[in-house]
Amino acid sequence: MKLNMMYSFLKTDIDLIEKELEVAIESQSPILKEASLHLLQAGGKRIRPVFVLLAAKFGHYDIHLIKHVAIALELIHMASLVHDDVIDDADLRRGKATIKSQWDNRVAMYTGDFIFARSLETMTKIPDSQAHKILSDIMVELCIGEIAQIEDKYRYNQSLRDYLRRIKRKTALLIAGSCQLGAIAAGAPAEIHKKLYSFGYNVGMSFQITDDILDLTSSEEELGKPAGSDLLQGNITLPILYAMNEDPSLSQMIQKVSDQTTPIEMKSIIGKIKETSAIEQSHKVSKMYLKKALRDLESLPNTRAKKTLRDIANFIGNRKY
Amino acid sequence: MKLNMMYSFLKTDIDLIEKELEVAIESQSPILKEASLHLLQAGGKRIRPVFVLLAAKFGHYDIHLIKHVAIALELIHMASLVHDDVIDDADLRRGKATIKSQWDNRVAMYTGDFIFARSLETMTKIPDSQAHKILSDIMVELCIGEIAQIEDKYRYNQSLRDYLRRIKRKTALLIAGSCQLGAIAAGAPAEIHKKLYSFGYNVGMSFQITDDILDLTSSEEELGKPAGSDLLQGNITLPILYAMNEDPSLSQMIQKVSDQTTPIEMKSIIGKIKETSAIEQSHKVSKMYLKKALRDLESLPNTRAKKTLRDIANFIGNRKY
Repeated sequence: MKLNMMYSFLKTDIDLIEKELEVAIESQSPILKEASLHLLQAGGKRIRPVFVLLAAKFGHYDIHLIKHVAIALELIHMASLVHDDVIDDADLRRGKATIKSQWDNRVAMYTGDFIFARSLETMTKIPDSQAHKILSDIMVELCIGEIAQIEDKYRYNQSLRDYLRRIKRKTALLIAGSCQLGAIAAGAPAEIHKKLYSFGYNVGMSFQITDDILDLTSSEEELGKPAGSDLLQGNITLPILYAMNEDPSLSQMIQKVSDQTTPIEMKSIIGKIKETSAIEQSHKVSKMYLKKALRDLESLPNTRAKKTLRDIANFIGNRKY
Repeated sequence: MKLNMMYSFLKTDIDLIEKELEVAIESQSPILKEASLHLLQAGGKRIRPVFVLLAAKFGHYDIHLIKHVAIALELIHMASLVHDDVIDDADLRRGKATIKSQWDNRVAMYTGDFIFARSLETMTKIPDSQAHKILSDIMVELCIGEIAQIEDKYRYNQSLRDYLRRIKRKTALLIAGSCQLGAIAAGAPAEIHKKLYSFGYNVGMSFQITDDILDLTSSEEELGKPAGSDLLQGNITLPILYAMNEDPSLSQMIQKVSDQTTPIEMKSIIGKIKETSAIEQSHKVSKMYLKKALRDLESLPNTRAKKTLRDIANFIGNRKY
């Protein structure tokens, strides 16, 4: 089953959010308008809004309130992508030119700032000031994660724990926050929004680990960027850590990867990583988080929303591209 | 009288804020810690916190509440300086190396993001959700102003109105917001916080115009950067607009300024600008805003805070460096 088929019963609400995202980043400024719209049209799975809506189903679901939370979280995510592209010096994202490649780094920086600010502005439409605190805390952690990603680049002696903490900040907290804020804004009781937070965290961890595996196992066509991009940019992911640990001579090769590494050399290194148990071990860790996520759901009331969260978690943990 | 002598009765509270600013940007990350502390130690007038505290004197002044507003506004200002330095490619600010020159643009971007996020996090300690909305609105306008500054660079046919709108977003709204939020957080009545907002706006406009004049009339020693930096970077300020309008041949020379322009050529152009009435006309506009600011204060109760706001406004509007 395709991902968007799983939540087809939310289609009207998701369409509404898509339209309002466009309104949220409207601006008189020609550059800002074009850059933001460009980003919006590049699409994406809008998975954070979906989590917000599904979590809100565990409380009093009112789309006209909850949409603000969904929009705020998707905007934070979009803003962080724009700033990521500056860091990664990426020219393509989802096969489309990035803002930083089409304009320049400075425009990308301010477009990101603008979208961040719009996100927070949108969230203030929710009267609960706890929600504002949670959102700004997420932003703080996200930024610390981004800086950690710079600090940890090419740092080959980092631990699994460094990696896990980094992806927690980079990915998992935003998904956890989507689930938590959706439930809080809908007035769900604490025992429910805490479970949903934990669910989101575990799904997020599983998702990012799968993403980091796919960066090595997928083709350039599937990824929309060359395979092994993480390694080329010095991002040390879980499978890379496992491979280095298992095979010291491969570890030496990995530590020599640089701008000068040719695509053929890269292909050979990826081949050697696949010969180790790194991919399998990483899959195991991803599955462990997935299992935890599914366990978080167990005590929640049996509703269509719960079934959908389970389907999405399974899809995300098992996806092949 | 020196600026900080004008508000010496606030010294204990300002010292407290200085200490808490340090706590607010604390982080485990070595880069982030060093970059933020470096920025903090570069100092600055902390004029936004001073405005917050003085405005709060018109309500129920409680430093343990109001400090959060003061810190949030100074952090926003600091964050925008960090991102400005990326834009301006500035290597020095207040005579000290900028974050972007000491590390790189990416670190500067995320350090700015981190400080922005900390600012919003700090503000959530104020229970009034109106305050969160005002702060995020200021951030949105600040970002739009930054993008406008890129769009308007080297656009010599821009109008006075373009310039005024830009400095409103870049400078005046943050000072207006400092006065407004200080008064709101202290529970001052609407007629007072509206007057203070207007006062802050007018002071901010006067301040920025004076700054733009000083960029042409001060020495490199006074500025901590070469005179005429705005022009060199393509930032078209009020005196430049007036000079171009008055002298078409000077206008031609100004439009040819680029990276290739030598310091001697620059000195000659600045000399010619000074021969026009541009500086005088710009001073007039600055004085007009200063007068408006002083008028905004008239209806407020006669307190030490009011007298201090008047002294600061006069100082800012008349300063020579």
